[in-house]
Amino acid sequence: MEVSVNDPKCPSRLVLEHVTSRWGVLVLAALLERSYRFSELRRTIGGVSEKMLAQTLQTLERDGFVHREARPVIPPRVDYSLTALGEEAARKVWELARWTERRVPAVEAARAAYDARRAPLG
Amino acid sequence: MEVSVNDPKCPSRLVLEHVTSRWGVLVLAALLERSYRFSELRRTIGGVSEKMLAQTLQTLERDGFVHREARPVIPPRVDYSLTALGEEAARKVWELARWTERRVPAVEAARAAYDARRAPLG
Repeated sequence: MEVSVNDPKCPSRLVLEHVTSRWGVLVLAALLERSYRFSELRRTIGGVSEKMLAQTLQTLERDGFVHREARPVIPPRVDYSLTALGEEAARKVWELARWTERRVPAVEAARAAYDARRAPLG
Repeated sequence: MEVSVNDPKCPSRLVLEHVTSRWGVLVLAALLERSYRFSELRRTIGGVSEKMLAQTLQTLERDGFVHREARPVIPPRVDYSLTALGEEAARKVWELARWTERRVPAVEAARAAYDARRAPLG
């Protein structure tokens, strides 16, 4: 069977959905810069709930992208970092995030032009 | 104000969500290869509904990534292609899609190891 993200039954489709999920993208891009504790990551990624962050990290850990390390200290401390596989994905996602930030003015100009073409005359 | 996808109020957050949306990713990656008619695109991207594809194309058109061309022929024909801006995004997304397809075996091995660590003993 050919491997293709265009095939909804191909396992690559679900992997792509994990890597490009709303919070997955932001978690991978953040972890490319350094390792984070849960609470730090939650403060860094604005708008993510505790539940969604925990779920995203668990999905990325199970897929082999994120390494979770519980440190035997008091109070307990858990660090999240990228695996080698996760770093490959994170580099691509990071590029996309930085590109998006640079291109906001171009997107806003395109939207204004689009809306103007559809505005009623007069 | 600093532009950052980590800020939920920054416009780059929404642009990133459009580019990495479930169907946005697949539409951009497909259009990097060639232009498509609506019905062709719908056949190529398995599992997308007519409504979701139309909505995704419209969002990407408004953001300035996709060019929609209605050709004055009978029966009417509409072609979708990438703009120069859309091509920049699509190259990054395409790389991610192809990387995902290549790395499925590594992800499946990671999942098996993760599940084995969590399986009850005996």
